[in-house]
Amino acid sequence: MEFELTHQDLRSSARAGIIRTAHGTIETPIFMPVGTQGTVKSLSPDELVTLGAQIILGNTYHLYLRPGSELIEKAGGLHAFSNWRKPILTDSGGYQVFSLADLNKVTAEGLTFQSHIDGSYHLFTPEKVIQIQRSLGSDVMMVLDKCNPYPCSYDEAAQGNKITQQWAERSLQQYQASDPKFGYEQSIFGIVQGSIYEPLRRESARGLVDLDFPGYAIGGLSVGEPKPALYEMTELSASLLPPEKPRYLMGVGKPEDIVTAVGYGVDMFDCVIPTRNGRNGTVFTKNGPLVIKNALYRDDFRPIDDACQCYVCQNFTRAYIRHLFQAGEILALRLASYHNLYFYLELVGLIRKAIIENQYSVWQKGFFERYASNSTSQS
Amino acid sequence: MEFELTHQDLRSSARAGIIRTAHGTIETPIFMPVGTQGTVKSLSPDELVTLGAQIILGNTYHLYLRPGSELIEKAGGLHAFSNWRKPILTDSGGYQVFSLADLNKVTAEGLTFQSHIDGSYHLFTPEKVIQIQRSLGSDVMMVLDKCNPYPCSYDEAAQGNKITQQWAERSLQQYQASDPKFGYEQSIFGIVQGSIYEPLRRESARGLVDLDFPGYAIGGLSVGEPKPALYEMTELSASLLPPEKPRYLMGVGKPEDIVTAVGYGVDMFDCVIPTRNGRNGTVFTKNGPLVIKNALYRDDFRPIDDACQCYVCQNFTRAYIRHLFQAGEILALRLASYHNLYFYLELVGLIRKAIIENQYSVWQKGFFERYASNSTSQS
Repeated sequence: MEFELTHQDLRSSARAGIIRTAHGTIETPIFMPVGTQGTVKSLSPDELVTLGAQIILGNTYHLYLRPGSELIEKAGGLHAFSNWRKPILTDSGGYQVFSLADLNKVTAEGLTFQSHIDGSYHLFTPEKVIQIQRSLGSDVMMVLDKCNPYPCSYDEAAQGNKITQQWAERSLQQYQASDPKFGYEQSIFGIVQGSIYEPLRRESARGLVDLDFPGYAIGGLSVGEPKPALYEMTELSASLLPPEKPRYLMGVGKPEDIVTAVGYGVDMFDCVIPTRNGRNGTVFTKNGPLVIKNALYRDDFRPIDDACQCYVCQNFTRAYIRHLFQAGEILALRLASYHNLYFYLELVGLIRKAIIENQYSVWQKGFFERYASNSTSQS
Repeated sequence: MEFELTHQDLRSSARAGIIRTAHGTIETPIFMPVGTQGTVKSLSPDELVTLGAQIILGNTYHLYLRPGSELIEKAGGLHAFSNWRKPILTDSGGYQVFSLADLNKVTAEGLTFQSHIDGSYHLFTPEKVIQIQRSLGSDVMMVLDKCNPYPCSYDEAAQGNKITQQWAERSLQQYQASDPKFGYEQSIFGIVQGSIYEPLRRESARGLVDLDFPGYAIGGLSVGEPKPALYEMTELSASLLPPEKPRYLMGVGKPEDIVTAVGYGVDMFDCVIPTRNGRNGTVFTKNGPLVIKNALYRDDFRPIDDACQCYVCQNFTRAYIRHLFQAGEILALRLASYHNLYFYLELVGLIRKAIIENQYSVWQKGFFERYASNSTSQS
C-alpha cells in the first residue's frame, strides 16, 4: 500500500489523497461500505461498483466463524470468494468479540471467546488474527486491539492501552514474519485507543507511531460516548498521527460526523448506518434523513431526493418504496440500501472536491445549513 | 391484444406465437414471473429486463388490499407505480380469496371475504374486479372465477361451473361497458374450470368459448390434484379451446410440467416456484434442481450450473451462495431467484426454438432424459 497526500486544506485539517493497493486505488476521504459476512447487505458486487465504492470492509470475526477462513483461503481469498475485485479492508475481530461474542476474556496470550453462532470456544491471538487476515487476503489488515466499553474508568483504559500496545507489537512481528498467500502485498494498520482520556490517547498514539505502521486507525469511539467526546477525541487522535500516513476513524458514522471528522484530518470511514438504517426504512437526503415508511409518503410520487441522480431516485417514488416496506418486500431493503450508499459515496466525493478546491470550510458550512441531522418528515 | 399463431409443431400440439400488447410483444410459449405485490420478489425491474422477462404477473387481491388500487391508479397504473414498462397480466383475485382470505363466501352478488392483512371485510363482484384491473392498467385482465378446492365433489364442481360462467358473462359486460383509464387497450381472458371432471371441463370450455374471449386460461389445477390429473385435464382443456386464441395454464409449474403442457398446446405459464423455491435454497440446473444449502456444496467452487450463462453462474460459486444462505444474507435470495428465473426463461426460449424447428418431440425427449425432477445432490 502506498499513500500519497495530494491536497491539504488551507483553513482546516481536511486533506485529500490517494491510496494505492494491489486491487486498485482509493481516493480519500473515502467511505467504506461494510460487508460483514462477505457481502454488503442486500447488494451485489456489481451494484457496489456502479455506486462508486472503491473499497469495502470485511469482518474477520464473522468470516472466521462462518464460513471459516480456511474455506475462504481455499476459494482464493475473500476477493475471489465474494467476487469483489477492488480493495478490501478487514478489521481484526476484536471489536466484535467484545460486542457480540457470548463470553470473552483477555489473557496474556490473547482473547478467548464463545461464538455467538454455535457457542463454540475460540482464541484470538494477535498472531492468529494476522494469519486469518492472510487467509482472507485483504488489502488492509487491522491489528487485534483491546476496545474499551463506554463508560470506562481511567485505570481500565490505561490497562487497555498496555494490552493494545503489546498486541500491536506482536501483530507487526507476525506481519513481518509472514508472507501473503496470494502473491500481492497486504498492508497493516495500528489502532489508537485510550477511551475519552486525553493523556491515554496521547500515550496510545505515541506508542503506535513509534512502531511505524503504514496507516493508523482511531478506535474505541462511537461506542456510546457523547457526541462532543467523539469529536474531541477524533480531533486529538488525528492530530497525533503522522500526516504522511492514512487515518481511519472506525465505525463512524452519520453524515454530519463524517463531515466533521474530515475537518480534523480523517481520511477513511466505515459504518453500517447507510445499509442498516436503510433496511429499517430511513433514507438520506440533502436535507437530512427521512423515514420512508411514514404514512406521510403514502401517495408521494416524488423520488426520495429530487436532487439525487442514483438509480433508485431516477426510477422509483417514495410511495412505491413505502409500499414495498409495508408489504415486507426485499426490494425495499435493496432500494433503501442502494440509495443510502450512493448518498454516502457522493458525500465523500463532494467533500474531496471541496478540499481540492480549497473550499472545505465553506462547503462544510453550507452542508450544515442545509442538513437537518434528525429524521424529519420534510417534503 | 393480438395473438398470432406462427408455428404449429407437426408431431404434438405444441405451438409458437406472438402476443402483441400496448406495452410490447410476447413470444410464446412464455413464462410469466410472479410479482404478487408489485415486485417480483427480491428482483428489480431492470434485472427482469436483463433476464429476458417479457411479461410479469400482478395479483389483484394483494394490490387491492395494499397499497390499494386507487393509489396505483393515482400513480398512473401498475406499470408506472412499479416502473415495469413491459406487459403485465393481473389475475382476478378469486384464487387468493379462496386460498388466503380468512373467511370467504360466495353470494349471488359475488365473493365476500376478510382481508388476511387486517381482517377488514370486502366484496369482490365480477364488475368490481374488472374495475380494479382497469385501475391497475394491466395489459391482460382475468375474469373473477370460482376456483374449486381439491378434492371437490362432482356436484360442487358443477355448481362452481355455473358461477364461473355467470361471472364470466358479467365480467365481459363490464369490460365492454368500461374504458381503459390510461389510454391503451386492455384485454380480458376467460377461465376454464371443472375440477378433474371431464364433462365439466367440456361444459366450462364450451360456455366460455361461446362468449368469445380474446384469450383463455385453464384454471383450477395445481391445487393438490395428482400429477396425472393435472396433465389429463390440461390436455383436455387445451384441446377444447380455439387454436387462434392464447392459452394460459394458471399457476403451473415445475419445469417438467411446462415442458409437458406445451406439448398439449399451452402458450402461457406463471408460477411462484422459481422465486419461492429459490428463496428456500433450491436452484434449477439442466440436470434437475439442487438444494444449494446442503453441506455437500460447502467447498464446491463451481457455478450452480456450469452450462448456464446467467450473471449468477458467471460470477459466483455454489460455495459462496451456500455461505450466503447459511449466513441469512439477502443476496442469497437474490442470486437464487435470479438464476432460477433465468433458467425458466431460457427453458421457454429453448422450447420455442424447438417448436419453430419442428423438433419439439425430440427436444422434449432429450429434456426428460437429462432432467431429474427430484431435488438431487448431484454434482
